[in-house]
Amino acid sequence: MFDKLKEECGIFGIWGNPEAANLTYLGLHALQHRGQESAGIVSSDGSTLHLHKELGLVTDVFDADKLARLPGSAAIGHVRYGTAGGRGIKNAQPFAVDCGGRPVAIAHNGNLVDATARRAELERDGAIFFSTSDTEVILHLLARQQGGDLSARIVRALERVQGAYSLLFLTDDAMVGVRDPRGFRPLILGKLKDAWILASETCALDLIEAEYVREIEPGEVVTIDAQGVHSSFPFPKAPASRCIFEHVYFARPDSLVFGTSVYEARTRQGAQLAKEHPVDADIVIPCPDSGVPAAIGYAEASGIPFAMGIVRSHYIGRTFIEPTQSIRHFGVKLKLNALRRVLEGKRVVVVDDSIVRGTTSRKIVKMLRNAGAAEIHLRISSPPTSWPCYYGVDTPSRAELISASHTIDEIAKYVTADSLGYLSLEGLHHAVGSMEGYCHACFSGDYPVSFPHEDVKRSLRVLEA
Amino acid sequence: MFDKLKEECGIFGIWGNPEAANLTYLGLHALQHRGQESAGIVSSDGSTLHLHKELGLVTDVFDADKLARLPGSAAIGHVRYGTAGGRGIKNAQPFAVDCGGRPVAIAHNGNLVDATARRAELERDGAIFFSTSDTEVILHLLARQQGGDLSARIVRALERVQGAYSLLFLTDDAMVGVRDPRGFRPLILGKLKDAWILASETCALDLIEAEYVREIEPGEVVTIDAQGVHSSFPFPKAPASRCIFEHVYFARPDSLVFGTSVYEARTRQGAQLAKEHPVDADIVIPCPDSGVPAAIGYAEASGIPFAMGIVRSHYIGRTFIEPTQSIRHFGVKLKLNALRRVLEGKRVVVVDDSIVRGTTSRKIVKMLRNAGAAEIHLRISSPPTSWPCYYGVDTPSRAELISASHTIDEIAKYVTADSLGYLSLEGLHHAVGSMEGYCHACFSGDYPVSFPHEDVKRSLRVLEA
Amino acid sequence: MFDKLKEECGIFGIWGNPEAANLTYLGLHALQHRGQESAGIVSSDGSTLHLHKELGLVTDVFDADKLARLPGSAAIGHVRYGTAGGRGIKNAQPFAVDCGGRPVAIAHNGNLVDATARRAELERDGAIFFSTSDTEVILHLLARQQGGDLSARIVRALERVQGAYSLLFLTDDAMVGVRDPRGFRPLILGKLKDAWILASETCALDLIEAEYVREIEPGEVVTIDAQGVHSSFPFPKAPASRCIFEHVYFARPDSLVFGTSVYEARTRQGAQLAKEHPVDADIVIPCPDSGVPAAIGYAEASGIPFAMGIVRSHYIGRTFIEPTQSIRHFGVKLKLNALRRVLEGKRVVVVDDSIVRGTTSRKIVKMLRNAGAAEIHLRISSPPTSWPCYYGVDTPSRAELISASHTIDEIAKYVTADSLGYLSLEGLHHAVGSMEGYCHACFSGDYPVSFPHEDVKRSLRVLEA
Amino acid sequence: MFDKLKEECGIFGIWGNPEAANLTYLGLHALQHRGQESAGIVSSDGSTLHLHKELGLVTDVFDADKLARLPGSAAIGHVRYGTAGGRGIKNAQPFAVDCGGRPVAIAHNGNLVDATARRAELERDGAIFFSTSDTEVILHLLARQQGGDLSARIVRALERVQGAYSLLFLTDDAMVGVRDPRGFRPLILGKLKDAWILASETCALDLIEAEYVREIEPGEVVTIDAQGVHSSFPFPKAPASRCIFEHVYFARPDSLVFGTSVYEARTRQGAQLAKEHPVDADIVIPCPDSGVPAAIGYAEASGIPFAMGIVRSHYIGRTFIEPTQSIRHFGVKLKLNALRRVLEGKRVVVVDDSIVRGTTSRKIVKMLRNAGAAEIHLRISSPPTSWPCYYGVDTPSRAELISASHTIDEIAKYVTADSLGYLSLEGLHHAVGSMEGYCHACFSGDYPVSFPHEDVKRSLRVLEA
Repeated sequence: MFDKLKEECGIFGIWGNPEAANLTYLGLHALQHRGQESAGIVSSDGSTLHLHKELGLVTDVFDADKLARLPGSAAIGHVRYGTAGGRGIKNAQPFAVDCGGRPVAIAHNGNLVDATARRAELERDGAIFFSTSDTEVILHLLARQQGGDLSARIVRALERVQGAYSLLFLTDDAMVGVRDPRGFRPLILGKLKDAWILASETCALDLIEAEYVREIEPGEVVTIDAQGVHSSFPFPKAPASRCIFEHVYFARPDSLVFGTSVYEARTRQGAQLAKEHPVDADIVIPCPDSGVPAAIGYAEASGIPFAMGIVRSHYIGRTFIEPTQSIRHFGVKLKLNALRRVLEGKRVVVVDDSIVRGTTSRKIVKMLRNAGAAEIHLRISSPPTSWPCYYGVDTPSRAELISASHTIDEIAKYVTADSLGYLSLEGLHHAVGSMEGYCHACFSGDYPVSFPHEDVKRSLRVLEA
Repeated sequence: MFDKLKEECGIFGIWGNPEAANLTYLGLHALQHRGQESAGIVSSDGSTLHLHKELGLVTDVFDADKLARLPGSAAIGHVRYGTAGGRGIKNAQPFAVDCGGRPVAIAHNGNLVDATARRAELERDGAIFFSTSDTEVILHLLARQQGGDLSARIVRALERVQGAYSLLFLTDDAMVGVRDPRGFRPLILGKLKDAWILASETCALDLIEAEYVREIEPGEVVTIDAQGVHSSFPFPKAPASRCIFEHVYFARPDSLVFGTSVYEARTRQGAQLAKEHPVDADIVIPCPDSGVPAAIGYAEASGIPFAMGIVRSHYIGRTFIEPTQSIRHFGVKLKLNALRRVLEGKRVVVVDDSIVRGTTSRKIVKMLRNAGAAEIHLRISSPPTSWPCYYGVDTPSRAELISASHTIDEIAKYVTADSLGYLSLEGLHHAVGSMEGYCHACFSGDYPVSFPHEDVKRSLRVLEA
Repeated sequence: MFDKLKEECGIFGIWGNPEAANLTYLGLHALQHRGQESAGIVSSDGSTLHLHKELGLVTDVFDADKLARLPGSAAIGHVRYGTAGGRGIKNAQPFAVDCGGRPVAIAHNGNLVDATARRAELERDGAIFFSTSDTEVILHLLARQQGGDLSARIVRALERVQGAYSLLFLTDDAMVGVRDPRGFRPLILGKLKDAWILASETCALDLIEAEYVREIEPGEVVTIDAQGVHSSFPFPKAPASRCIFEHVYFARPDSLVFGTSVYEARTRQGAQLAKEHPVDADIVIPCPDSGVPAAIGYAEASGIPFAMGIVRSHYIGRTFIEPTQSIRHFGVKLKLNALRRVLEGKRVVVVDDSIVRGTTSRKIVKMLRNAGAAEIHLRISSPPTSWPCYYGVDTPSRAELISASHTIDEIAKYVTADSLGYLSLEGLHHAVGSMEGYCHACFSGDYPVSFPHEDVKRSLRVLEA
Repeated sequence: MFDKLKEECGIFGIWGNPEAANLTYLGLHALQHRGQESAGIVSSDGSTLHLHKELGLVTDVFDADKLARLPGSAAIGHVRYGTAGGRGIKNAQPFAVDCGGRPVAIAHNGNLVDATARRAELERDGAIFFSTSDTEVILHLLARQQGGDLSARIVRALERVQGAYSLLFLTDDAMVGVRDPRGFRPLILGKLKDAWILASETCALDLIEAEYVREIEPGEVVTIDAQGVHSSFPFPKAPASRCIFEHVYFARPDSLVFGTSVYEARTRQGAQLAKEHPVDADIVIPCPDSGVPAAIGYAEASGIPFAMGIVRSHYIGRTFIEPTQSIRHFGVKLKLNALRRVLEGKRVVVVDDSIVRGTTSRKIVKMLRNAGAAEIHLRISSPPTSWPCYYGVDTPSRAELISASHTIDEIAKYVTADSLGYLSLEGLHHAVGSMEGYCHACFSGDYPVSFPHEDVKRSLRVLEA
């Protein structure tokens, strides 16, 4: 409904707790914001893997009966946001297969930039593909590695691919976590009594009252088995390229991501934005809910009072029907409503995290204007989003990104704001606490890992109807 | 999940738009917070009434096909929160029946205090009851009125009952809205081009871009038909007893209720609370989402910085399964998470709207303490809730209301807060802008309409399994 | 799918077994052929009635959880075939209501001929109607009877209506069965250890291994309570008018109906048909499944070999989709297939139980012809169906009944049979073993109870969407 | 529910009709008796394959929307009966994969005897397996064939496996049908205007009014593409081993299988049985529905009257709940009921097609005895089933087959029949019209293709929960 970039996946794994599947269910629930199309869990009982996955939210996909059929003290889980052409149950994760006489499951957050080429080679070599997912490529490469233990084979398989991946593997006797050498996507380590946890964000630890241990480092491979936790760094060293957009929008504000509090990073973004783009105004309001921390930061730094000038409804189901004749384009109105008594006659600063196509911003500005706002100053707590992401985020094509082809003035005009200010890239770095170690390709076009410039989408040959 | 009083119903009606059912669907969606158990719409095509109702949220109960089977330019709708013993499809509203050769539908927000006595009389007189709802009593009384037009018969029927009611009636040629003489529950009039709208709250108007006209007055009967809108005040005059709790918790913050902005009333409650119960602290945080406006008001009045120290998840389905062994009592944790980086070492003012049993508050204080808060000062933006409501709100028995039997110190101790302060009744009146015209029985025990002191619940004889 | 008259309901009740609801579930399952639109059960635990009913087949409507919520040692149940205008959950039975301070449930097989008039009187007198069912009229009349025990009040209520009814009533302390004075619809008494059973057909007893005791007599009222079984005959005596069509098509062949084996009655119909309409032929085949016993009887009496020349599929779901372009009118083909190797070059006698509109017969004859049959002689084991039924059977209007306006030769021509023979009414009486005591209005137009000649369908004013 | 051997699959394919998916839907519906666990269709639009498959009956899996998303003029479909360990959506067919840059789909009826060995080799060679199905082995082998056209690669792949297979392949430009050299499982060719059809049984042709052309021969490979139909026989010649049990129970009686009418084969089995095991009796009754043709044959040959002494219910849903306390073991009673009036005091010949464990037969004999039968002579229209099938039929282990370890007298005693007679293997051959060309391993233990004598079931490592 909203015009946002979309994180494509969340992952969670636990080793060493008799309620592994139940805890994974809770962990995935906490990570639900990272993917709402499908959910799945694979558990290991020490000899067999047990899989359940379906399209739907975590609480719809699982019930007590289904969780009871996932025995064992280790489990990994996955939530997924389906991208065009890649939707459907066949792409739902985890994948679990028989491979060299052993069962192995995989859950993946990220995107391989060379999956199409690898897939073509594998197909020429006799591999058959049941899904359109790049993750299946990793499984095929893994299956072709002979000799060595699981983590050694995983490393040899991953040496053949490029791109962004935080990965969990589960077999009958080990769980392995891997983060690509640049560490695009997050992965953290936690502990619950004797059990070890790997998860995308710390909010998954909080829910199950587990303790945060540390970030898994870029390029790190962590093997957890009966002997404990083993860490290694088998890949050639590369500069870190953590996704800075996790701190702008993707992650939950109550998470630590890349070791930094998301909430604090966002309030600092707001404060910095107030410095970079001050304005005389009566109130500062957020676009709920993602703009709230930055708006608080902006209000505090500017001394302008904070107000919830827009209310968000909590009751949108997935099948909302729009009446088709006299009333159309409900769009954001079904979710958001502006408060006339708060806004009437006021000069309003409205803070949002990003603008993608500009369509939502335009509707929000119109809604505020209709509610009587005298002036509307739109402030964005990140730089203009001008470049597509190839590292695991669903972005529109460059042609659809409004800031790829329009000046800030043109955008302000399009969204009908009285003024528009974006946070600078330096300001954003300042807010997240480090001037380096981040990927900011969506803002800068500086892609840390190159990708095929021809059309990367091969035509799909088998579609789920 | 949360320990709150529950508004029992929301109602919406529209007369004079060819998309009446579609607009009612949107209106009910905006009123979803007033009842989540069932939803229903009756439309009138000028000769026949068409009904669809089911258990579930508005967006689950209706789809394009079902709305298409509700033709006509008038419709009324209802969302309902089911109380113990009254759940189930048989109590879902609107009711639509044949009555004296004419079809009539009814949607009710409120509660009759003498329904049991009236029902017993009606049963003795040969009436049969398909539901356990007090609303069915009104229908039986209406059916027994001979002569006169619809609104005259409605008035004669309602003269025989006491209590709280905002009512919508729909027939083949008219829509009638009624508010009881004391005006316990809200009802407003709106306009969308040539169509007239009656609804519980103004937020339902905003969504469909209709205009707010005015509050329906206590004791007013409004008849809308081909001749236009007719208003009358047929009941003996009584002092107004508007439900003050609408301004504390029930209504959406973006609504006008009883002519007053709910958001503004709540920020004033917070500001007044800061005056009545000041404290040295580092941050003010709300219990999301209902405590947000009062927390903003408290922060502003006290000069203490506002922060979102607790994050609320938006992904709770209705069938959440709690793991049963090692981890229990997730309760509010599934919805709320405290932000350690915001809270650690801080003296925290946490603002909530009310305390019912105290169980949720206790969990929230514990969660804040675990996240490192140094001091926790709980501030409640309403007086202690010590008396059950008999006028359309689902309250626990007096024995379960913690403030009915405990001092404020005892409550503070139970919820493990370092200090606890409630807004005074005078302060609350001040915040809502009037020292009279409100029912505050839940705080004061001053019941404006007497009710049977014996057990008002008759044993139910037919239960839905 | 097939062009058949439809029995509208089946009923089952049991008193005195701790598994009353479970046994009622089984009983309804055995009576499923009498109604497939909805199913419901009401149980009594001695003080409260517990109700569950839904649209769907018995095995879809109930599961172990739902049956577990129907406690008590007495229960009544109902399966229903919905007629035009009367479909929907609001008309699903049993009805269970509060009535004079006591709960009462009702399940009805039959049809009142004066329901519209009674309903109009009741509405004038202040009654409200939640359904369009004539059964609700009985409940209203019952609720208005003061004094006397349940069965006395039931009798006084029923004295005010005319028509066909086999009824079960259940309260907190008794189960009552009633059959109208002419006994149109069946009702039998059974026994399972200490429990008493009332049911439409004996096949429901067989499934639960209960013993058949006897037919409830026309005009009999049976009260079953803690004191045992009491029988009375309170209505004025009338000639019996048992529905002869139960023996032609409605009842299951393994039932005794009106004390006679349905299977045997049907084989005798076939034998009689062979006498009345002999033909030189090579094989006798039935229209499966209803024509099987009569075809066996015809084959045996004629000495012509019996064969299953048409096979019936068992896998039709309720949502069969017909391809819409090149291939249409699958109709009976989805259920039936003719066997070329059995039929090719043969002179075939095909035996069916009845012809309503003629459409199905025409398709079957065409199917047989396409499969190579040399001659097709259609034999019908009942007389021409020329008159609508007003006593609880869903019949098309007289205009749609092919034999109401066509000679037998014309019908033969329409269905493209080489010859056509119907069993005579005398032959049918002979086969069922009695020349009197039966209603044969659908064949003869001799209606034993008069009905309003004007349009009996009042326009409905409240429709379920 | 019944104690029967189970055919594992039915297949249907069509090439050259714009409604290919719709016609495949109908074809699968006609083949539903060959598998009720899952259903699937893959269509080809000339460049892309479109797949939909789910657990459930054909009419539940597909609706108009889903069929509309299967465009193109070619399609193959599959219905499946899931065996232990092989259930679940991951094993549902058709499989459709990307393989060497081309999409290919497969539907399989049969069983490979060396799938486990082939799978182990493939896994060692780097293949990963998403299912536990032997059919996936064929896909992997096919993917590894380089060069040549599709049918050449299919042949080379199949040269590496042994066992029973009737196969359909679909790509973007061809449909290929293959029958293994011994022709265990059926496959026929049909024609509908310009379209060619391959199907398991002719009943699928009848439903869509297509014409039967001929049986696909054992060892034949048929390629259908834009150039028409091409046939070849690339495999070494082997003696035909058609499954004789298709004529005993699996196939629909209205089909031609292996060129012979199933109905006629079964009536001849009954006639032969009457010769081999005559008995003085009053009536011959079938076990419905599979025993009907043989019972007719027995009755005709013996001159004893035929009767439907047992009635079969058509309303068993898949979720039937058995009451758990006082009444148990409903088993066949939910489906079958004996007719006391037909059976009482009679000497009864009851004809069934086979006895597997004997449990159902025992219940049926008991049911007949309870209904008053004086003598019960059980006649089986096939020889004792003493050996498991390894060629695509779900059979219990030899230990569970009652005739593997008991004499006929012992079996008669176990099922409590007064006498028991099985058709001889010679008699069965006589009835199907040929003394050779059939596999009769389940009766004789003469296995035409050897299979691994060690446990053929590898432990499964990934299970669907």
